[in-house]
Amino acid sequence: MKRRDFSVEYRFANRVDHLKPSVIREILKFTGMPGIVPFAAGNPAPEAFPVEEVTRISGKIFAETPIDALQYSISEGDPALRETMRGFMRGRYGAFREFDELIITAGAQQVMELTVKALCDEGDTLICENPSFIGSLNAFRSYKLNLVGIEMESDGISLEKLEQALKAHKNTKLIYLIPNFQNPSGLTMSGEKRKAVYELAKRYNTLILEDNPYGETRFAGEDIPPIKSLDEDGIVVYAGSFSKVLSPGLRVGYAVAPTEIIAKMTVCKQVSDVHTNIWAQKICGAFMTECDYDAHIQKIKGIYRRKAELMMSLMDRYLMPKITYNPVQGGLFIWARLPEGTDMLEFCRQAVQKKVAVVPGSAFLSDESAPCRNIRLNFSTPTDEQMTEGMEILGKMAAEI
Amino acid sequence: MKRRDFSVEYRFANRVDHLKPSVIREILKFTGMPGIVPFAAGNPAPEAFPVEEVTRISGKIFAETPIDALQYSISEGDPALRETMRGFMRGRYGAFREFDELIITAGAQQVMELTVKALCDEGDTLICENPSFIGSLNAFRSYKLNLVGIEMESDGISLEKLEQALKAHKNTKLIYLIPNFQNPSGLTMSGEKRKAVYELAKRYNTLILEDNPYGETRFAGEDIPPIKSLDEDGIVVYAGSFSKVLSPGLRVGYAVAPTEIIAKMTVCKQVSDVHTNIWAQKICGAFMTECDYDAHIQKIKGIYRRKAELMMSLMDRYLMPKITYNPVQGGLFIWARLPEGTDMLEFCRQAVQKKVAVVPGSAFLSDESAPCRNIRLNFSTPTDEQMTEGMEILGKMAAEI
Repeated sequence: MKRRDFSVEYRFANRVDHLKPSVIREILKFTGMPGIVPFAAGNPAPEAFPVEEVTRISGKIFAETPIDALQYSISEGDPALRETMRGFMRGRYGAFREFDELIITAGAQQVMELTVKALCDEGDTLICENPSFIGSLNAFRSYKLNLVGIEMESDGISLEKLEQALKAHKNTKLIYLIPNFQNPSGLTMSGEKRKAVYELAKRYNTLILEDNPYGETRFAGEDIPPIKSLDEDGIVVYAGSFSKVLSPGLRVGYAVAPTEIIAKMTVCKQVSDVHTNIWAQKICGAFMTECDYDAHIQKIKGIYRRKAELMMSLMDRYLMPKITYNPVQGGLFIWARLPEGTDMLEFCRQAVQKKVAVVPGSAFLSDESAPCRNIRLNFSTPTDEQMTEGMEILGKMAAEI
Repeated sequence: MKRRDFSVEYRFANRVDHLKPSVIREILKFTGMPGIVPFAAGNPAPEAFPVEEVTRISGKIFAETPIDALQYSISEGDPALRETMRGFMRGRYGAFREFDELIITAGAQQVMELTVKALCDEGDTLICENPSFIGSLNAFRSYKLNLVGIEMESDGISLEKLEQALKAHKNTKLIYLIPNFQNPSGLTMSGEKRKAVYELAKRYNTLILEDNPYGETRFAGEDIPPIKSLDEDGIVVYAGSFSKVLSPGLRVGYAVAPTEIIAKMTVCKQVSDVHTNIWAQKICGAFMTECDYDAHIQKIKGIYRRKAELMMSLMDRYLMPKITYNPVQGGLFIWARLPEGTDMLEFCRQAVQKKVAVVPGSAFLSDESAPCRNIRLNFSTPTDEQMTEGMEILGKMAAEI
């Protein structure tokens, strides 16, 4: 890195000075290496992508309306896709009211970015589940929010601790929740708890940011309506995504929220990327209206049910009872717990050396330096053979703990 | 907008409280209306899109590597496209040095967002040309920067005023410049001035953010190397875009900057949208390597030369000398000046009523409330007939001033 004598010291903004690349993204680079068992990944299973349908739709776009797909569009998103998704939110969840509006985003990740950019000043408190999704936590950190993580119970966030936090932090702007198959814990919030959390948010005059990337992947048990379906008061910002139902490479997601909030998020989107790739929006729109969405979702559920059940049976066989885990009914991840006294980070390092990539649980904590003996395991990316191979290796490691 | 009795008052972040939707985006909604002459637009000419090539490349992607185009990718961008663009920057401009790195973004707009998010704290000064591109100015405003606009001369920003501003504002982090066919003024900075600005930035220990969306559209005169080609010291962040050479709907741009800065921008991109739509990146990559880029650029130049010359001849005929303008050799816009004493905003309003949409010049000022009698006219979007019709109407209005 040679430069001329003149030497520059780059001064970065305070807000990002402390931010590091996501541990997961860094590990993903590893994950692509040959011979590595990719339990650290978060990629949907390639066989879940509707390749034929997307190929056909894309061909049709270029045959019929190529200019529309290549020209500038509007920041709110493709009008047809927006109308489709309004209908989807109404019909599937009863979660689009008169006061709501919808914006198309570059994946659900952008919903997090736009929501906090529009609503939160530096130092405002954002309450989240602890652990929670690292990508969202880093987005919140990049706006210098005060992250307050709340303990999880088997049916979701602890109500008692949540209320304590709301009392203690008067400047709470948002409660960030992933009610279905939470990443990384795999836990789902019960219907009663969703109502209770909603009432708490209302009572303490704060908004909820509900992230639902995995809702459509439930392969066992009964659907529970999202918190947004309870939102008669206009206090919930809902984040949806095409990443797990169609394709993550498209980078298409959406937010549903009261019109005033969507308007401000739209201004933030304008200055961020003008609008989302328009071809991808048209792919999503045509997929929702022209293809058999329900049949596709059934197919995806079948793929993930089989993979999750195989993974859990292997964990029962090789890891239990030393390494325990939360059983899952959807999502892509299993949250496993090492025995008391284990050095979790050292365990992860040794696993990578033995060619099994797992994500250290501490990456998902609101305070990454807090003690943690969890690891996150992904079951959507590895093949059956990789799963078996990886679990055998982790099993041997567990036996030596 | 009915809600239950409980009434919510949304408190937005200070940084965006004052931000309004871009006047241009708002006017664009108008522009699509039938019968409106779209001088307010900024759309590339549809006939400039390489529809056949993109159709063929897209078909090939889905025939050969559909999963790669649909799966998650890395935040820095598609490795092949990054390597191609490093080579392009080196070969075309001599503007990629050992200490530089390149990131793929969601259009050049995202370069502005990521650069200021990574480098600037609230209250830092950003010096820009006055007028300048509203999309960039609003991105800067959304981070609460102190915008200081510097007067333009026929060969670019005033050096004297620039140095005065650098002296007056010790907290200047960035000088934002569009050296080629500046939007909206149409002016191009001379080679001498580029060198002088670079030396000034160095002397005052500040960085330059160089935005070059129109560089490849020069249809008359000689190319002038970008400021980045002078950058032996690592003080220039360069923003490139596929919007005007290939397609804006793809939303693909790139930044070239010293590695440390790109690393921090990458973290900001991770939390913003994870990565840019991967199909679009592969379209751009294949277009650059498999198609005849030079022939395509020659075709685009021919289209814009013809349109710009027609526009200027109509302005000579219908508007001059009452309404004057800066002649152009590239870009998409002509900056016209109404006679002294004209109420510019009222002129724009009347024009829209007569079905000619133009953008009020004040939209492009660092201080939008400053006096202004310019309007911005686009020549890439209207058809020949629309141009003639629109100029006749504006000519009649001019005659009545």
